[in-house]
Parts: sequence; structure tokens; C-alpha cells
Amino acid sequence: MAEEEAAVIKRNKQVILKRYPEGLPKEDDMEVISTAAIKLKLPDGYGGILVKNLYLSCDPFQRTLMRHVPPSAGSAFHFYATDSPLFGYGVGKVLDSGHPDFKQGDLVWGITTWEEYALLPKPQTLIKILHTDVPLSYYAGILGMPGMTAYAGFYKICNPKKGENVFISAAAGAIGQLVGQFAKLSGCYVVGSAGSKEKVKLLKEKLGFDDAFNYKEEKDLKASLKRCFPEGIDIYFENVGGKTLEAVLLNMRQFGRIAVCGMISQYNIDEEEGVRNLMQLVSKRVRMEGFNCLDHLHKYSEYLDFVLPHIRQGKFVYVEDIAHGLDSAPSALVGLFLGRNVGKQLIHLSD
Amino acid sequence: MAEEEAAVIKRNKQVILKRYPEGLPKEDDMEVISTAAIKLKLPDGYGGILVKNLYLSCDPFQRTLMRHVPPSAGSAFHFYATDSPLFGYGVGKVLDSGHPDFKQGDLVWGITTWEEYALLPKPQTLIKILHTDVPLSYYAGILGMPGMTAYAGFYKICNPKKGENVFISAAAGAIGQLVGQFAKLSGCYVVGSAGSKEKVKLLKEKLGFDDAFNYKEEKDLKASLKRCFPEGIDIYFENVGGKTLEAVLLNMRQFGRIAVCGMISQYNIDEEEGVRNLMQLVSKRVRMEGFNCLDHLHKYSEYLDFVLPHIRQGKFVYVEDIAHGLDSAPSALVGLFLGRNVGKQLIHLSD
Repeated sequence: MAEEEAAVIKRNKQVILKRYPEGLPKEDDMEVISTAAIKLKLPDGYGGILVKNLYLSCDPFQRTLMRHVPPSAGSAFHFYATDSPLFGYGVGKVLDSGHPDFKQGDLVWGITTWEEYALLPKPQTLIKILHTDVPLSYYAGILGMPGMTAYAGFYKICNPKKGENVFISAAAGAIGQLVGQFAKLSGCYVVGSAGSKEKVKLLKEKLGFDDAFNYKEEKDLKASLKRCFPEGIDIYFENVGGKTLEAVLLNMRQFGRIAVCGMISQYNIDEEEGVRNLMQLVSKRVRMEGFNCLDHLHKYSEYLDFVLPHIRQGKFVYVEDIAHGLDSAPSALVGLFLGRNVGKQLIHLSD
Repeated sequence: MAEEEAAVIKRNKQVILKRYPEGLPKEDDMEVISTAAIKLKLPDGYGGILVKNLYLSCDPFQRTLMRHVPPSAGSAFHFYATDSPLFGYGVGKVLDSGHPDFKQGDLVWGITTWEEYALLPKPQTLIKILHTDVPLSYYAGILGMPGMTAYAGFYKICNPKKGENVFISAAAGAIGQLVGQFAKLSGCYVVGSAGSKEKVKLLKEKLGFDDAFNYKEEKDLKASLKRCFPEGIDIYFENVGGKTLEAVLLNMRQFGRIAVCGMISQYNIDEEEGVRNLMQLVSKRVRMEGFNCLDHLHKYSEYLDFVLPHIRQGKFVYVEDIAHGLDSAPSALVGLFLGRNVGKQLIHLSD
């Protein structure tokens, strides 16, 4: 199939950034366009690969790239440029390869551009998919970046101990739902916050959380957390920042750990909110640590050994929210910041 | 001498808290009073010790105890009560002992009450002074809590590596001046901030800092730090909080460490300031950790083995600001929050 496709001339659809959003990104900050026809075959001597994208992943960090920051020589990564396709995590199939590590037909996950067919000049950052008895979409979720992030953040940064109290914000999201299940597996007491009744129900009834609440319905987050954790929080998996972090700090226990994965509440405002109560770090000897799953990718096979058996035995649930077709991509990405998604937000392009 | 004194009847002078301060503590929030005459001898069967205080230490954490918080069963420490003597670190001589670990004439350091003669019911928290070839006052400074705090915070929390960039706020204070000298000994590049020209001069000319600045004269702390650390900060030893922390976060390097020792800028205001730029923890994978030297006291003899030879060889300098007599205590303590002290603020009561 891939071989047939590689011979064909195709028009390519892309999602490009039209302008840098102010505040919440809007659908019309992006545009879905068709490029001129391209031949699905690499030129001789090209060292990259040509990939057909199957799934694209919508992730909060993408909002932080929607800023006008020119590429600099020393910087490890780039921000989005206007009139160029967005990029992000995805799952794809190699149609043609000029790189010795990849061959036609390989399935891969990693950073790809938001288009149907992507020319990736540095494929060495992509990871080959070796297990296909689980849904392919999982490689944009539980078996991809969100999975590694939950694993590294919870096990490597938080050092959980049996019986500890764990709080997770954005708990029904791509990463939070996994941290909750890992924490239950470790014998912890686990509470999550989310932004709708439906998500709270999901946390309690499907994902095995001991308790959950809708932060939008709570008048006093400090009191809500005190109610859920009368003895305080040992581990906080931080996805949101702002007022939630302030309230958590007041409820931390001695020698608590806060793994800072992201702060989605701060991405769509011009200036970060100030966070009070940081003196709690001293009085309670709390460690607060930012991390990035990229620093832990060398543990990916260790993670697969851990997680795959649990998936195959149905012990881990992974909730996905799948939009269909590249035309739905701008709406799916915007929905992430409105809390519209329930579970991991993906865009399905092709099987 | 102690034996003679123990037989004597004396009036005891105390520094009591008259009222809980609002904002900056004022001298008249405290009062120096004389108690009824007391006999300098313990009653039979009493399990504590009677100590003559020689030096009292003024420390920023004392401000955080000047709040109306009733003692609670679960709490490890108490806040100050009005009409009772303050307490804090000090150096004293045992006049009489009902505790098997202490005898008349022993020199000790640890938590004592702010009075000439202190009855300490739980002397097991005090540490006996075994080396008297160095100034006794050092046991309220470089050889006491500030020394252990600098040692634990810098070596155990920050994990310094040769060549790293170290920034220290309140650098001319009791702890900061030591962290700077430890960091130079570890081969780091060290910059400190302080609140006067005189202190900046001290840092650069006497304490061996590579550079220093007066934060009160800087219009843009972010730019000041960028100027001092064009390649960013690996280690920040945090003593002040607030706007300084905000500016530091923007100047941290990848995998930086922030040891949070205290936040003196926040102690005299009703509500802690919010701190922005915490997303830098994620983008730069920074660890920010609160600590307390009490958790590291089991390393005290390790610390003495390290620090005493350097003191004896004149390789470490320790700058003290010594007030004389208990009557000067309220002014000395208040001065700490006005930045009046240059170096470690002590009160000398007796030789």
C-alpha cells in the first residue's frame, strides 16, 4: 500500500498559523489550506523521511509556541511561525525514507507537522512503533508523550510511597488520568480536580479516583482541598498553576513534592498571575520541580515494559476524545483551552 | 564562677512581646522588664537546666513567630505569646542542671528564651560546645544555626558543581555570607545582592564574592541579573522572595536549583506577594526546594569537621554585628528588618 502511495501525485492539506493569538486562541487564528500537488517520493540524497500522518495530538504546550519569538541559534526548540504549519506530537507511517534507521511502512511517533503528508528532515527524534496489538492512537497518548510525562513526573519526580495522599489537577486530561491510575497502583489515596460534572463522574466511576471535584463549582479551593485531604497532600501533580497552586501550597504536608508538568491556566493570559504562599515551601520543606518528558526518553522501553501488560490486561483505562479529519484540527486545539475535551484530544487523519 | 553565681539571688531581665506587630515590628512591640528575684539554683527533681545566656541571635524567622497562633497539639513548634519572653537561638553557660547530659559550667547553643537567666525544661535540643579556641559568638553564627543552614542548603539541596553560577540574595547576612564563601571554595562564580553600598563593598572586598550589587539601586532586577550572569544562574540561594525571585526565575539556566531558605521581603506584609514566572520551572526544569537546618542536625559533626579547619586557618571570614546588653535587643531585632545590620546580628549579654 505504502509503495503504491509513494508513486502518486497528491495535494497536501495543512493547518497553518495565520496570526499569533491574543488570549484564548480562536479557530480563525489558524487556517486549513491545500498546497500545490506534491509527489509522494523523496528526492535522491535527501536524508529525512516522508510520513503520512495518521493521528495528531492536541497538547497544551502548543499554546506556548504561538508567540512571536524568532528562532535563535542556542535554542533547543522553535516557536510557531505565521503562514507555516503548526507542529506537535503525532503518529505516522513512513512512505519514503532517506534515513538508514527508517524504512517504508514503518510506524513512528514523535514531532510531526500538522498536514497530511509531512517531510521530516530530522527523523532521529522519532520513535519506531514496535507493538501494534494496542490501538495506534495510544502512541499519541498513553504510549506517547503524555504517558512518558505521567510516568517520569509521578515515579521519578514525586517518589511516591504507599499510603501517600496525591492530588492531581486537570485530572481528566491526557496526563492527569494516567497519573491517577499510576498513583492508585502505588497504593496512594488519589483525588482529582476537573472542570465539569461529566469529567468528575469519569474520574470517580471509570478511572478509579478515590474522590474528585469540579473546581468551577468550588467557592474556596483551600477549603475544598482541606475537605478532601484533612491530613494534607504529600504529592501534587501540577497541570494548571495560578489559584489552584496557591490553594495546594496551603494544604501541603511536611516533605511534600510538587511535580510541575504545566500551568494551563496561565497560557492564555498576557502576564502570568502571581502565586502566593510560596513560604509554605520553607515551613513544610516542600520540593517543587519542573520537568520535561524529553529528559526521560531513555526510559521509554522501561516504561513500555511497565505499561503494556497493564493495558493488555485491561487494568489501565485510557479515555480519548477523537476529532476526525484535518479540517477539525483548529476546533479541536481551541477546545483544549476551553476544557471541551474529555480525555486525550486527538485528531484522526487516516487509518 | 558558675558555682558562686548559682548560690546567688538575682533579678532576671527579660524581653517580652507586648503586642503582635502589624507590618514592620517596632521596638515598642517589645518591652524589657525585670522579674522578681530568682534563686540561681534548680529545685530538686527538676529535669531541665538553668542557663546564663551569653549571646542571643536575631534571626528573620522570629518575625514569622510574632503572630497570634494558639499552640496546637500536632504542631512541632510554638509561636510567640504576648507578655512572655521571646525565644530564639543563643549561646549560654549551664549554671545548674537536672539533666544527665549537662553539668554546671557546660557551654551550650540552641533555642533559649530572651532573658538573662533561662530555665530550659527540654535541654535535649541543645548542643554542647566542645571547641572553645574559636569565638563563642560563632556558635550563634557560623558554628550554629546559620552555619548549618548554609551548609545543608548549599551542599545538600543545591548539589553544586565546579564552575557553576551561584546567586545569593541577602548575601551579607548571617547565612548568605557563608553560602558565598562555600560556593567560592567549590569553584563557583558567585554574585550576591544586598541593600547598601557598604554591604556590597563587604561582599566584594572582604567576603570574596566575584560580583555584588545593591538591589535598591537597580531599576530592573531582571536586567541586573542578566548583566551579572549572561549565561544564566545554576544555583539560587533564596533568602528574600517576592520581586527578586520573579527576576531570578527569568534568569535561571536549564536544570537550575533554588534552595529556599527564607523570604524576608514577605514577613512584614499582611499578605504574601504573588510570584510570577513559575512556568520557568517547567521550561527550564528547575528544582525549587524549601529546607530547614533542623532536618540536617545529624550532620553537625560532619559540618564542624569541614568548617573548623577553615576558620582556624583564617580561610573563612565571619562578619558579626554585635549589640550589647539585653536593653539593646528590641532595637537589634527590629534593625534586622530594616537592613541595619551588617553581617550576623547578635546581642552580647555576658562573657
